[in-house]
Amino acid sequence: MIGPSEIAGLSAEIAKRMKRSKLAIPAGVSVKHCHLTKEHFKILFGANAEPKRVKDIKQPGFYAAEECIDVKGPKGVLKKIRLVAPYRDHTQIELAATDAFAIGLNPPVRESGDVKGSAGAVLIGPMGQVEIKEGVIVAQRHLHFSPSEAAALGITSGETVRVRAGTGGGRAVVFEDVVVRVGPKYSLEFHVDTDEANTAGLKTGDFVHIA
Amino acid sequence: MIGPSEIAGLSAEIAKRMKRSKLAIPAGVSVKHCHLTKEHFKILFGANAEPKRVKDIKQPGFYAAEECIDVKGPKGVLKKIRLVAPYRDHTQIELAATDAFAIGLNPPVRESGDVKGSAGAVLIGPMGQVEIKEGVIVAQRHLHFSPSEAAALGITSGETVRVRAGTGGGRAVVFEDVVVRVGPKYSLEFHVDTDEANTAGLKTGDFVHIA
Repeated sequence: MIGPSEIAGLSAEIAKRMKRSKLAIPAGVSVKHCHLTKEHFKILFGANAEPKRVKDIKQPGFYAAEECIDVKGPKGVLKKIRLVAPYRDHTQIELAATDAFAIGLNPPVRESGDVKGSAGAVLIGPMGQVEIKEGVIVAQRHLHFSPSEAAALGITSGETVRVRAGTGGGRAVVFEDVVVRVGPKYSLEFHVDTDEANTAGLKTGDFVHIA
Repeated sequence: MIGPSEIAGLSAEIAKRMKRSKLAIPAGVSVKHCHLTKEHFKILFGANAEPKRVKDIKQPGFYAAEECIDVKGPKGVLKKIRLVAPYRDHTQIELAATDAFAIGLNPPVRESGDVKGSAGAVLIGPMGQVEIKEGVIVAQRHLHFSPSEAAALGITSGETVRVRAGTGGGRAVVFEDVVVRVGPKYSLEFHVDTDEANTAGLKTGDFVHIA
């Protein structure tokens, strides 16, 4: 039988879900791009080159640079992979699986920064090229929250949630396995790659909801 | 209060969902391909040419042909788009959104055969080319059932269901807006395009479940 205590428990769970699902979260679609170490940047663009800012991206401190590289795999080359600066400690190439398969790579799905044992490739710049043994990943979709935004919803960093996207467009999707990242520098955003965005008919700035 | 009749109603709904969700449905991933009218085929491949069978595909009567065409949009060309034969009454080019965007097209999401007002393109074959005003679509994801399979689950043609895919792979997705097609020639299969498959980490033959 369903008694008062079960109903109270259900009510609390439903209230939590309703609160979370009310928040409209803007999507940010990541087109394939790269992050480079200073060393790799200098090889690819020349010893005296520095990344030239084109525009800031939503997460504070990062910007899209003027510089692009080509990424070569066993079956082809992806042209014009945009650099997202500033420099990083590890070179990281973020591709959608469709991009990667097109050049014969099969990179793992990883959180940013977790490149150990990921796929390799040859990076080609105007002044040189570098073969990397690892660094090519498919980015794990994730949600960015500021600490206050997360606290308001009772969500903690590292938690996995579900996100509903594309409602009403005939291609709605519930993304499971969405990792939450909470940080003081983070701005509320749902990050997906182009495969995920195209599957749900989603564009940068469209709103999604925790499901 | 939740009384006996509400509990009975919930129980029936849960039983229906459990039954549906138990069925393991094989996924079929559609790579970009084309269907051609006889007239267009003859222009593209020559008056005396006929489609040459390479292999049957899972849905009875259809086969992948040896012939491929290039599809040109405002921003580029997609090479080697495979013909799926036999001839159709309307030429139809099925692209993933990622493919279409790459050549500057933005086709609508449609069920197969519903090409009216869809995107145009230039089709290029070894013997000629054709400009089509409509026919390029992104295929609406769908489930094929035989009548007996559908009857066993209480599912009817045209119904929309949700499908869970990629469970356990770190990229699970629930696809909403999945259209059911029931027909005597259909073989149980969940049809998605490469964007959708790559989003869920899904390959042809992997099993999915109604959610």
